[in-house]
Amino acid sequence: MSVLEWIGVDWGTSHLRVWGLAGSRVLHHAASEQGMGQLDRAGFEPALLALVADWLPDGQVTPAIICGMAGSRQGWVEAPYRAIPCTPLGGAIAQAPCRDLRLTVHVVPGLKQTQPADVIRGEETQIAGFLSRNPGWDGVVCLPGTHSKWAHVSAGEVVSFQTFLTGEIFALLSEQSVLRHSISGWDDTGFTEGAAQGMERPERLLARLFSVRAEGLLEGRDPAYARARLSGLLIGAELAAAKPYWLGQRVAIIGSESLAKHYAQALGTLSVPVTHHDATEMTLAGLAAARALLPHMERPCVN
Amino acid sequence: MSVLEWIGVDWGTSHLRVWGLAGSRVLHHAASEQGMGQLDRAGFEPALLALVADWLPDGQVTPAIICGMAGSRQGWVEAPYRAIPCTPLGGAIAQAPCRDLRLTVHVVPGLKQTQPADVIRGEETQIAGFLSRNPGWDGVVCLPGTHSKWAHVSAGEVVSFQTFLTGEIFALLSEQSVLRHSISGWDDTGFTEGAAQGMERPERLLARLFSVRAEGLLEGRDPAYARARLSGLLIGAELAAAKPYWLGQRVAIIGSESLAKHYAQALGTLSVPVTHHDATEMTLAGLAAARALLPHMERPCVN
Repeated sequence: MSVLEWIGVDWGTSHLRVWGLAGSRVLHHAASEQGMGQLDRAGFEPALLALVADWLPDGQVTPAIICGMAGSRQGWVEAPYRAIPCTPLGGAIAQAPCRDLRLTVHVVPGLKQTQPADVIRGEETQIAGFLSRNPGWDGVVCLPGTHSKWAHVSAGEVVSFQTFLTGEIFALLSEQSVLRHSISGWDDTGFTEGAAQGMERPERLLARLFSVRAEGLLEGRDPAYARARLSGLLIGAELAAAKPYWLGQRVAIIGSESLAKHYAQALGTLSVPVTHHDATEMTLAGLAAARALLPHMERPCVN
Repeated sequence: MSVLEWIGVDWGTSHLRVWGLAGSRVLHHAASEQGMGQLDRAGFEPALLALVADWLPDGQVTPAIICGMAGSRQGWVEAPYRAIPCTPLGGAIAQAPCRDLRLTVHVVPGLKQTQPADVIRGEETQIAGFLSRNPGWDGVVCLPGTHSKWAHVSAGEVVSFQTFLTGEIFALLSEQSVLRHSISGWDDTGFTEGAAQGMERPERLLARLFSVRAEGLLEGRDPAYARARLSGLLIGAELAAAKPYWLGQRVAIIGSESLAKHYAQALGTLSVPVTHHDATEMTLAGLAAARALLPHMERPCVN
């Protein structure tokens, strides 16, 4: 049986996911809802140990490599943003204070862009994972999610990036706005039509959202069509605004299967060549790449 | 002392406002949070009586004229939408069932538009009030709010209208999204700059929202500037999308003073001639106009 060598951690605002690894082999996996948003500084170590304590071998030091919001100012330890253009990983990896002597804790820094102002925390690790699997790749990486990110990658460096609130706005509108009364489920036709409308006339986005409700009231429009159309309108408008990114480029989408499929479908109608890569796989590959940057002495002392 | 002749009611999703009137003179005013959203059908009469019972003279029947969501399918009684083009008031006014013999209850119907699908409930009464004060007026009425409405009025009729979710999106983003950490207060400069950006490049709205957060993180941007800029970005994008309404027209803004001021300021930079009219005053004038359409026998029997 393989011996645990390191811990990989994806620590977002609302979730915590951990893996126990030997090289690139996953031995253990666990998750909790102890996201950064619910923890004060003293709460991070207990939240991590609650998931991994049973995995840790005694008599040796195991490194935990963390990406995501745990490195923000309100996180476990601040890992200051690195300024682009730069490789997705590099520079000083912040070490977080940890009382348990079986662990050393290392937090990957995010990236910042000055003009226009923008920041990334977590996605840089996924981009690094993607590049470790695809050395020498140039193009555009699209990471759809609560806050979608588009990043232009060239010669191994992130050259520019842009954040879109698309996923968060969809969640707010579909769960809490007046539109919630008219939408439920998913019908692909609604997505296709909404995305086409959103891409064609993104400047009319604010004017179109209420039609999702009005069509329900006046035409008895199917709620599954309506919900997918709302998603399409928003993603279509994102794609229109992201045109400087994808135009004339190949696009690697890193995300969950269902969301990536919708982006790929919409980009396909624009004849943009697209590949899809699993988000968790890229996170693990990126955390492994970050581990390789640690000083040698911090590697686990296994025989 | 004047004798109560009728009750005016503005019944929205989240609020209930009532006035006791003699002609156009307000004798009483009261309000509660018993909006349509919190009531089932049997709850409307008690909610109204809780505010007006003490005002009602015995031995006569007082009409209550209601505008707003109390006339929706989930309301007190459904007052079916009237199809535009039509006058803002007219057709059958729905009568709601009422056990208290001192009251008859009349609900103003909303308006509907088929292409593109859209609906109005409540604003038709404000438009009617405005027209009763400005007979023969042609132009565009802008009613900013949670759901902003733009309506083209010609020859006394509503010819077309459009709803924008601007106010609701601002509330969701500023109170519940990741942007909430970076915004608080109000700085006019932020509004002016955000509105200019929103009007100039509305298709980039989704790309710009996150910069409100990123500028706070990277540049220590003043939260008052940031919140006003967010409002400006959204209102600017609304104005860009509403261009078919205001272009070459005069615009009458019906709304609260602070919100109307922001719309007037942004429209002013586009050289659109604007006037401002108080929302409550227009509601009362519109309810009075609706009362004048009731059959004579339903007027109160005062000497």
